[in-house]
Amino acid sequence: MRRIILGVDPGSLITGFGVIEIVKQQSIYLTSGSIKIPAALEPAQRLHRIYQGLQQIIERYDPTEAAIEQVFMHQNPASALKLGQARGAAMLTIILQGIEQISEYSARQIKQAVVGYGAAGKVQVQHMVKTLLNLSAAPATDAADALAVALCHMHTQQSLSRLNKAK
Amino acid sequence: MRRIILGVDPGSLITGFGVIEIVKQQSIYLTSGSIKIPAALEPAQRLHRIYQGLQQIIERYDPTEAAIEQVFMHQNPASALKLGQARGAAMLTIILQGIEQISEYSARQIKQAVVGYGAAGKVQVQHMVKTLLNLSAAPATDAADALAVALCHMHTQQSLSRLNKAK
Repeated sequence: MRRIILGVDPGSLITGFGVIEIVKQQSIYLTSGSIKIPAALEPAQRLHRIYQGLQQIIERYDPTEAAIEQVFMHQNPASALKLGQARGAAMLTIILQGIEQISEYSARQIKQAVVGYGAAGKVQVQHMVKTLLNLSAAPATDAADALAVALCHMHTQQSLSRLNKAK
Repeated sequence: MRRIILGVDPGSLITGFGVIEIVKQQSIYLTSGSIKIPAALEPAQRLHRIYQGLQQIIERYDPTEAAIEQVFMHQNPASALKLGQARGAAMLTIILQGIEQISEYSARQIKQAVVGYGAAGKVQVQHMVKTLLNLSAAPATDAADALAVALCHMHTQQSLSRLNKAK
């Protein structure tokens, strides 16, 4: 069975996405990028853009699993609400495309899995994503974050499966 | 052309909905209620429930317009994020069912339109919704809030149309 992981980093202005395939325990890069939303659009139309963008990616790459960064803290309730709306639209889109579960990982878990250090910075994440996926250049921040959550999901699943086998 | 307004009051635990029809400038009650989401469900599944619930209502009553309460302030960023997710899912659901625009009204505008007083309380809103729609009993809070935003949309549209005719 093919295993293809979609990682998503939703935002009210930019939603990053990254898709990797797992072949013989190795991660293969399939695509990444970001959905940019014109600030002038009305709220509902903004959410529709996220839907259209993600739907295209899901139709094209047919991921079997999805992962998203868990969000804990926000200094500003107004931006938390906007981020929540983008997140809600992205999550619903994934579920409506037939992926039944969306795994959530904290920023710390993602950095730990990708860089080996939970307090790593954005540049370190970009660099490690490039290295782990054999890319010729580091992806832009939003795409790198989305690829990082996909890689974190893969590592977490592999650790869990090793743990289960060891029992 | 039939004019049917869907009002929605999204929440992470309960999403209220109300549908009214405008016949000869009068509002006719069609339905109202709430989608309750079991707290034990995973986040993505919660959003899917909102989608399924609203989709059923939209399929059955075929609204031509939709309105939602605008949200401004939150004391707690974590609840703002959750509310945002529910809101994003509800708004995307409405757009995906073919309603192109979702009008947003502030709590103050809604209370002003329904009770005639922007600082009215929940009970006053419930009471006026019951009166304006000739209901035998006041609807529960979430349903009443959803009906109130639908009524506010109707009144606002009628005022705008009168203004345009007066020009």
